[in-house]
Amino acid sequence: MKLDWQADSRGERTGRIGKLQNAMRKAGLDAFLATQNVDLYYLTGSMQTGYMLIPAEGEPTYYVRRSVARAISESSFRAVPLGSFRNFAGTLAADYPKLFGGIGPVRIGTELDVLPTQVYLKLSEMLNASSTKVELVDGSGLIRRIRMVKSPYELGRISAAAEVVDGALTAALPYLREGMTELEWMARLEHELRVRGHIGLMRMRGYNQEVITGMVGSGAAAAESSYFDGPAGGRGLGPSAPQSVSRKTFARNEPILIDIGCCMDGYVIDQTRTAVIGDLPADLLRAYEVSVHIIRAVENSLKPGTPADALYAEALKMAADAGLSEHFMGYGEDRVKFLGHGIGLEIDEWPVLAKGFANPLEAGMVLAVEPKFTFPGRGVVGIENTYIITEGGPLALTRSKEELIILPIQ
Amino acid sequence: MKLDWQADSRGERTGRIGKLQNAMRKAGLDAFLATQNVDLYYLTGSMQTGYMLIPAEGEPTYYVRRSVARAISESSFRAVPLGSFRNFAGTLAADYPKLFGGIGPVRIGTELDVLPTQVYLKLSEMLNASSTKVELVDGSGLIRRIRMVKSPYELGRISAAAEVVDGALTAALPYLREGMTELEWMARLEHELRVRGHIGLMRMRGYNQEVITGMVGSGAAAAESSYFDGPAGGRGLGPSAPQSVSRKTFARNEPILIDIGCCMDGYVIDQTRTAVIGDLPADLLRAYEVSVHIIRAVENSLKPGTPADALYAEALKMAADAGLSEHFMGYGEDRVKFLGHGIGLEIDEWPVLAKGFANPLEAGMVLAVEPKFTFPGRGVVGIENTYIITEGGPLALTRSKEELIILPIQ
Repeated sequence: MKLDWQADSRGERTGRIGKLQNAMRKAGLDAFLATQNVDLYYLTGSMQTGYMLIPAEGEPTYYVRRSVARAISESSFRAVPLGSFRNFAGTLAADYPKLFGGIGPVRIGTELDVLPTQVYLKLSEMLNASSTKVELVDGSGLIRRIRMVKSPYELGRISAAAEVVDGALTAALPYLREGMTELEWMARLEHELRVRGHIGLMRMRGYNQEVITGMVGSGAAAAESSYFDGPAGGRGLGPSAPQSVSRKTFARNEPILIDIGCCMDGYVIDQTRTAVIGDLPADLLRAYEVSVHIIRAVENSLKPGTPADALYAEALKMAADAGLSEHFMGYGEDRVKFLGHGIGLEIDEWPVLAKGFANPLEAGMVLAVEPKFTFPGRGVVGIENTYIITEGGPLALTRSKEELIILPIQ
Repeated sequence: MKLDWQADSRGERTGRIGKLQNAMRKAGLDAFLATQNVDLYYLTGSMQTGYMLIPAEGEPTYYVRRSVARAISESSFRAVPLGSFRNFAGTLAADYPKLFGGIGPVRIGTELDVLPTQVYLKLSEMLNASSTKVELVDGSGLIRRIRMVKSPYELGRISAAAEVVDGALTAALPYLREGMTELEWMARLEHELRVRGHIGLMRMRGYNQEVITGMVGSGAAAAESSYFDGPAGGRGLGPSAPQSVSRKTFARNEPILIDIGCCMDGYVIDQTRTAVIGDLPADLLRAYEVSVHIIRAVENSLKPGTPADALYAEALKMAADAGLSEHFMGYGEDRVKFLGHGIGLEIDEWPVLAKGFANPLEAGMVLAVEPKFTFPGRGVVGIENTYIITEGGPLALTRSKEELIILPIQ
């Protein structure tokens, strides 16, 4: 399979730069400095280490640490060697004399949500070594807002990832049986994802957060809470890997949560199905059905103009009406306070379907919606689809059949 | 397999806290604030999100965001809910009145090498909201230095990871054949690693760095340079995953670099072997043999007292004597400037066998030594072992047979 990288090339990226420049001008920023691998890829088409300087007016430059040759061959914009970090201020002054030639202050936005403090402090010091005063301020909101709305190319990539997840799940499900460990089955599923082109992990922006292929968990193990910023943590392989699969074996008549994704060509997908070997206990079956009711109800509101937080409020009310508030999106103290999240190059993109995200949905956003119910000691049930928001309503990218997966007792 | 987590529990961790407190006092720090998942695991035995405050004198406290229950059950020390972040300064003042009761300044070291700037700025502001002046300074060097020397428990975990890599390689090698893609074979190898307990990725401290199971690359694809902070990048699956395996098929008579690792119970291992289907060209075979000569020579110096940078200098000289300077540890501009690195909970630990690391090696350090030669358009050859430094010299933890792996043409 040969992918046409050019499809996502100069024209599209020029549009992204234009949007960022508009946002900069509104925010009173003179420039934006991209430092993070994912943002660099989004803006340049390359993921080599370095810095991209985007002035509020004019052409951007990608200052590359390593590999310069690779960045030059991949980048949609001018890419040059970073050279000595100490001289970076001088390089910038030479390349952007209007910006760095005066006394300043020059206000530069950068990704303070991910940039390590050590790098931030070194950048600040280096940029202020000359007589121009430079202020580094948080510009992460700007780039995250632009990334919320996906292009047709991006939608195609996320859809391709959804197809891979469905194919891998279909291939791996026949091997899921009683007595097998969660880890063993996950290894098989991951093999199916990997041979289809999964890059090996899903990228996540949050500090200390990790996600490889999502979470598979059964019964009591699935219901164990964890640091992971999602409704279901999972027991994991021990205190040093405290999420997702454990060495617990699958047993009959308990829910098996299959909350999985992959990363294809940089883009991730997120999908959850619930399975059972035998039958679900009646109360868990009912909770599963409530999760389906919630996702159906939310689909009716998944359209341009709906405030993101209204979707969460609607789901909370439905969970309460079903008497399941305490079990919704985790249990008790460990519940997470959202119903879903934006998804694209990272799994934790904006908007978040949560209180405080009052901005209306827009066409081209991609959202994972994941109503789930946790029963400590017994398991987690739920469903998750990833949708494009279109003028006509939501379009599901996840394509695995929407049903409780009932596996035979063998 | 049931692991005895207690083996690495309270006693050992109390020793780590003691070392950190000694280092704090020498550095003039009043406290250390651990924030990163790996450091939190090292210090507490748990990896739940939150902050650990270690005063220079007295007992530490683990302030947990999520999951509190899990942290309490796993932590070797007092773990309590973090509660409201805004009130964290008040909580600290109540728990550590000697530290936060005066006007300050209180000097607190934290991991500025990984802490996102946004969190750093919020912490600084919150901690300075009262009348006590609090300075957050870089303490990453302190914790990284303590983590350099491993305990017997840790050495056991790294050794277990080495055994898993050997077992997985042995199981996967028979499937490696001409015409198969690098990705397909990597998927098989990763399956073998995963079923043996690999947590799914290897942790790395560096900003924008990612490593899952290492790098497998053949011929020209292996020799493609990348941002990855190692001697061999690899073509990868595209600009959004620009390292390790590609969709290139294995061909005869070209080197196949198998630079792999895994993470068991939090601890990682790193090992490289070179394989070929058929025969290596004479000059690449010679370069491979030079890499073996270098590792044998370095082994003689891998003992307490040797300055880390002397090992790199020795290897550079041997590469130069062989006329291979331009090919050593990458090619041309993209060469990395080290011969090896510390390894433990992360793959990029201290010391680095590089210029500027003049401190002498100590017993209990674990080092991956990886002399490699890159030939653009043709491939990468080399070898890598991970060693414990002991009083009697190096003890290799990696146990895969040290030979050029020659696979038959079928």
